[in-house]
Amino acid sequence: MSFRPLMAIPENRLSKMINRLKEEGFRLTPQRVAVVKILASNEEHLSAEKIYERVRADFPFTSLATIYKTVKLLKQLGEVMELGFVDDSNRFDGARPYPHPHLICTKCRRILDPDLPVLSELPRELAKKTGYHILNHRLDFFGVCPECQKREKN
Amino acid sequence: MSFRPLMAIPENRLSKMINRLKEEGFRLTPQRVAVVKILASNEEHLSAEKIYERVRADFPFTSLATIYKTVKLLKQLGEVMELGFVDDSNRFDGARPYPHPHLICTKCRRILDPDLPVLSELPRELAKKTGYHILNHRLDFFGVCPECQKREKN
Repeated sequence: MSFRPLMAIPENRLSKMINRLKEEGFRLTPQRVAVVKILASNEEHLSAEKIYERVRADFPFTSLATIYKTVKLLKQLGEVMELGFVDDSNRFDGARPYPHPHLICTKCRRILDPDLPVLSELPRELAKKTGYHILNHRLDFFGVCPECQKREKN
Repeated sequence: MSFRPLMAIPENRLSKMINRLKEEGFRLTPQRVAVVKILASNEEHLSAEKIYERVRADFPFTSLATIYKTVKLLKQLGEVMELGFVDDSNRFDGARPYPHPHLICTKCRRILDPDLPVLSELPRELAKKTGYHILNHRLDFFGVCPECQKREKN
């Protein structure tokens, strides 16, 4: 088990997402490319509102609707995974748009991707044992990150 | 890995929940006991609405508010776990009020408890590797149950 925060844009994810949009005939406006870049790097699994804040820093006239539309489009193309939360904003992951475990800080809401290879065979094993046709899974660990633990002590 | 649908009321869960309510000074009305019985058996991880339907079969004058209040109370006492869903009603589990994997049919919304012992050490291991203070986790598998697969074929 290793710990792998994604801090740089994985080039292959960025080019794949850009190519999918081109193939589907969507215009690559600078705002749309900015959204794609954020989703492809996505070290924090941002909410639509946070993506909006970041895009607006470079493109002040971008609307939240543009962000929602681009994210929805990429989700429909299978290039972005949406993580729904009952008690918080939904978050988006374009770096790994397939089921994988998340480690969520309940204080700062940071979301990280721990590597847990022991889980990779579970869906197939479960399907064999139960007769279910497994489509998807979701594993979230909730806790307090080291930074927030320090802040709590001070 | 084995498959363990809970089809009978585990006596220890029922008596534990009843005792907790008594200890906390809550009146054991027949309606409240009916809710506790359903939650303690809870082979289906029912929604508040479904619990309401069942209790009303025996106690036609029960209100949905009574159901919500009893469930909320038991949740506060740590005797019921709430499973939130973004796209569906929340569901309640009084048989196992602690984190455990769920297998959810996306057609009939039945929820079962598969036994996956491989997961038991994960939270501790993850805490050691990442420095996070792990508080909780949630693992949901989504798929189509054998009965719904048959129905789809016909």
